[in-house]
Amino acid sequence: MHYTLSEIAALIGGRVLGDAEVKISQIATLKLAQPDQISFLTNSKYRAELDNTRAGAVILSEADAQATDLPRIISQNPYAYFAKVSAMLNPSPSVRPGVHSTAVVGAGAQIDPSACIAAMAVIGEGAVVGAHSVIGEGCFIGDKAIVGRHARLYPRVVIYHDCVIGDNLIAHSGVVIGADGFGIAMDEGRWIKIPQIGRVVIGNNVEIGANTTIDRGALNDTVIEDGVKLDNQIQIAHNVRIGAHTAIAGCVGIAGSTTIGKYCQIGGSAGILGHLNIADNVVIASFTLVGKSIHEAGSYAGIFPFGRTEDWRKNAVHLRHLDEMAKRIKTLEQALLKIAER
Amino acid sequence: MHYTLSEIAALIGGRVLGDAEVKISQIATLKLAQPDQISFLTNSKYRAELDNTRAGAVILSEADAQATDLPRIISQNPYAYFAKVSAMLNPSPSVRPGVHSTAVVGAGAQIDPSACIAAMAVIGEGAVVGAHSVIGEGCFIGDKAIVGRHARLYPRVVIYHDCVIGDNLIAHSGVVIGADGFGIAMDEGRWIKIPQIGRVVIGNNVEIGANTTIDRGALNDTVIEDGVKLDNQIQIAHNVRIGAHTAIAGCVGIAGSTTIGKYCQIGGSAGILGHLNIADNVVIASFTLVGKSIHEAGSYAGIFPFGRTEDWRKNAVHLRHLDEMAKRIKTLEQALLKIAER
Amino acid sequence: MHYTLSEIAALIGGRVLGDAEVKISQIATLKLAQPDQISFLTNSKYRAELDNTRAGAVILSEADAQATDLPRIISQNPYAYFAKVSAMLNPSPSVRPGVHSTAVVGAGAQIDPSACIAAMAVIGEGAVVGAHSVIGEGCFIGDKAIVGRHARLYPRVVIYHDCVIGDNLIAHSGVVIGADGFGIAMDEGRWIKIPQIGRVVIGNNVEIGANTTIDRGALNDTVIEDGVKLDNQIQIAHNVRIGAHTAIAGCVGIAGSTTIGKYCQIGGSAGILGHLNIADNVVIASFTLVGKSIHEAGSYAGIFPFGRTEDWRKNAVHLRHLDEMAKRIKTLEQALLKIAER
Repeated sequence: MHYTLSEIAALIGGRVLGDAEVKISQIATLKLAQPDQISFLTNSKYRAELDNTRAGAVILSEADAQATDLPRIISQNPYAYFAKVSAMLNPSPSVRPGVHSTAVVGAGAQIDPSACIAAMAVIGEGAVVGAHSVIGEGCFIGDKAIVGRHARLYPRVVIYHDCVIGDNLIAHSGVVIGADGFGIAMDEGRWIKIPQIGRVVIGNNVEIGANTTIDRGALNDTVIEDGVKLDNQIQIAHNVRIGAHTAIAGCVGIAGSTTIGKYCQIGGSAGILGHLNIADNVVIASFTLVGKSIHEAGSYAGIFPFGRTEDWRKNAVHLRHLDEMAKRIKTLEQALLKIAER
Repeated sequence: MHYTLSEIAALIGGRVLGDAEVKISQIATLKLAQPDQISFLTNSKYRAELDNTRAGAVILSEADAQATDLPRIISQNPYAYFAKVSAMLNPSPSVRPGVHSTAVVGAGAQIDPSACIAAMAVIGEGAVVGAHSVIGEGCFIGDKAIVGRHARLYPRVVIYHDCVIGDNLIAHSGVVIGADGFGIAMDEGRWIKIPQIGRVVIGNNVEIGANTTIDRGALNDTVIEDGVKLDNQIQIAHNVRIGAHTAIAGCVGIAGSTTIGKYCQIGGSAGILGHLNIADNVVIASFTLVGKSIHEAGSYAGIFPFGRTEDWRKNAVHLRHLDEMAKRIKTLEQALLKIAER
Repeated sequence: MHYTLSEIAALIGGRVLGDAEVKISQIATLKLAQPDQISFLTNSKYRAELDNTRAGAVILSEADAQATDLPRIISQNPYAYFAKVSAMLNPSPSVRPGVHSTAVVGAGAQIDPSACIAAMAVIGEGAVVGAHSVIGEGCFIGDKAIVGRHARLYPRVVIYHDCVIGDNLIAHSGVVIGADGFGIAMDEGRWIKIPQIGRVVIGNNVEIGANTTIDRGALNDTVIEDGVKLDNQIQIAHNVRIGAHTAIAGCVGIAGSTTIGKYCQIGGSAGILGHLNIADNVVIASFTLVGKSIHEAGSYAGIFPFGRTEDWRKNAVHLRHLDEMAKRIKTLEQALLKIAER
């Protein structure tokens, strides 16, 4: 498969400069691109790589439009343009409709004839799988769960009973949707289990990374809105709501009943305590624990700076005495004030 | 299914006030409850919601007994009472005994006739599955592993060979019990593997959340005592012992050979280093790394407070100079002392 | 199975002191060892346990050679020696060659006749499984993926299409190799997916713990070099490169395009941001976020010290005012200077 620059621009837009008939068969980094490949520059500080690239063409911003003589496409958003070209050149494999002979489909399940149920998959009773969806090898879809159209479940995804998923879900291997939330009550020295009778409800165009877990609600539902993108190994507790188009990096944990706004970005291994509200457009740094609600858009952080272990040790020891240190400063100030008054 | 308040109180206890014949078919939050549903108030600060609820009945503490005219049940522990009512109204689905035609059962395995081995499950040679237990779709039980009675393994749980599990285990999808601990020794520039020949031994009434991993012991066993409750994505290393009725929130990591007492509570994403001892009744805050043994019950924390990124940056930079700051304070104090002595 | 001390020394080396014909059938800790078992002392501070052990023999360093009269083997590296003895006494179960009747093997897949494909495993089209490798129950090997010789994949490991694995891989249950990296681009208020067309390439002698995830590259490959040892629940993002013989403890997250050197050791729950370079022989403490490249070998840390919650609270509150505190110290110093000048 290949496209000329003019074909690409006709499909995706953008302005072609130089030879528009160059044929492109793949996308690659500036360093590794070959003459039949297109590359891209999203940050002007890598212009030096542009000079040395063997790429047949490049995608550039308006600002960099004249930074090379190579055939090029000028875009307002070269990074998104790159994503679109890559999707053209690397289309998803076509779906092979049908239910594999080893798959097990429960009574009353509705599998669209255009859907693919792969080997070893198990579809529960009364479950629904929409058109053009792929339920990968060894996946489990619980009783009465609903998976929309054009879903792509990679091998070994588990969706518990009654959960509802919109269209275009991508779920990577090891994802678990709808396991019980962590609901326990102490009763005379024993923890007793609180049945988790809510569901997980997921909107359209959501992607979920490998081994991420999203728990079902205790009474009400856990909700993931449209366009949310979740990386690997994220833990989302019961009754959390994640606003549309929020993106969350790997290893983040979000505790129960917290609501996160739209268009938030949460860095890797961050945590958010339970029963909080996070406003729209909040950016949270990696490794930050959010312990209070955030009512204003903006960027938040709370990271212990790392250093040489001997330096860290020397400095960190004082954290146990910061309050005392603050008091000593106050005492000094008062003493100086007295001296000044003399 | 429904129960009247008097039927509920007859089964669970508590004191009914108002119409004891109200029929209840489900439990719900005060905000969303319908007239055929019961709700509950566990914290007096939500009394306003009590005024507006459409619930047919509520569960209240003695202190809130007169806070509404609704039919109500008064309990010393409304939260545990709610859990019990919910369990009555939402019983576990009954077990369908038998081995699914697609399951594979190894030679010499003992499957109780009342147990259910679901589709695609694999039971190793000489393994034991107790009465009324459910081994979910695609689960794997290793050779000679023992699973007690009334276990509920959700799809895709893995239990390695020789592990021993008590009664009433609940294990959610993706749980891995008994994988090798991380045991390596450096030998002339190469890591060599230390065989992990211990087991995982789990008591009764334990629940384990999705994608949590519990490693087998290096030489001795890893032990999870009765009534321990583990949330999702927890990592428990080899030779750890977790005391009875300890509850651990999601994403916690516990390093090798650490012993944790009974009735501890560990917050999400916390960590505990290896070879430590944690006393009974210790509460550890989320995101806290415990780097030393804790010999006294109580509450412990070590969290970097988050804030606006610009504020965080301004403040955090000084952490690299705390020791110098402490010395400067000392110098100031000595200088002032000299001035005072003059 | 048992060996005499002289047989062990003949195979592994080391110097025997005392009765070289003692028969040893297992290895155990000093506390629990029985007369037919061998134990070991790797740290002189546990010498007291040596006095009380019932072990039939012990492995000691040269320094401790005379610390007991028990039959003993003297080694320069008792810990590695212990690992080797344990491997002799606890050999891996032999591989049962053949493809289980329930396994599904895609067209054109090359399975070495000495390999074992266990129940419910699925091997993709054109995939390769090398000699003496075991693909465990319910594993999935994607189209055209290559697994080398002597691999041991425990149940439910997933390897996506086109990934390449060297010899002697050990991968524990729940491992996911080659899922899509987290690549998204914002385009007019919507995240669009960047196809992840790189692979994961893994060298020889790598071990990967349960539920660890390694993402495929966006354009180029994600690379794990020879001898790397990964514990459980680690997340390795796209285009990361991990140098040979680096060992990483559980729950670590490594963000995209970061390169880690050889012989590094990374503590549990640590994090490394994206696009960084970490030199060879770097040791990173548990719970430390590495936010900048590290160009020199050595030990690095950044951990908030934990303490009683009330102490922590009292001290941590000042972190929001450290900058102000630093300024107040400066002011005090200037004031004192003026006083001194008078």
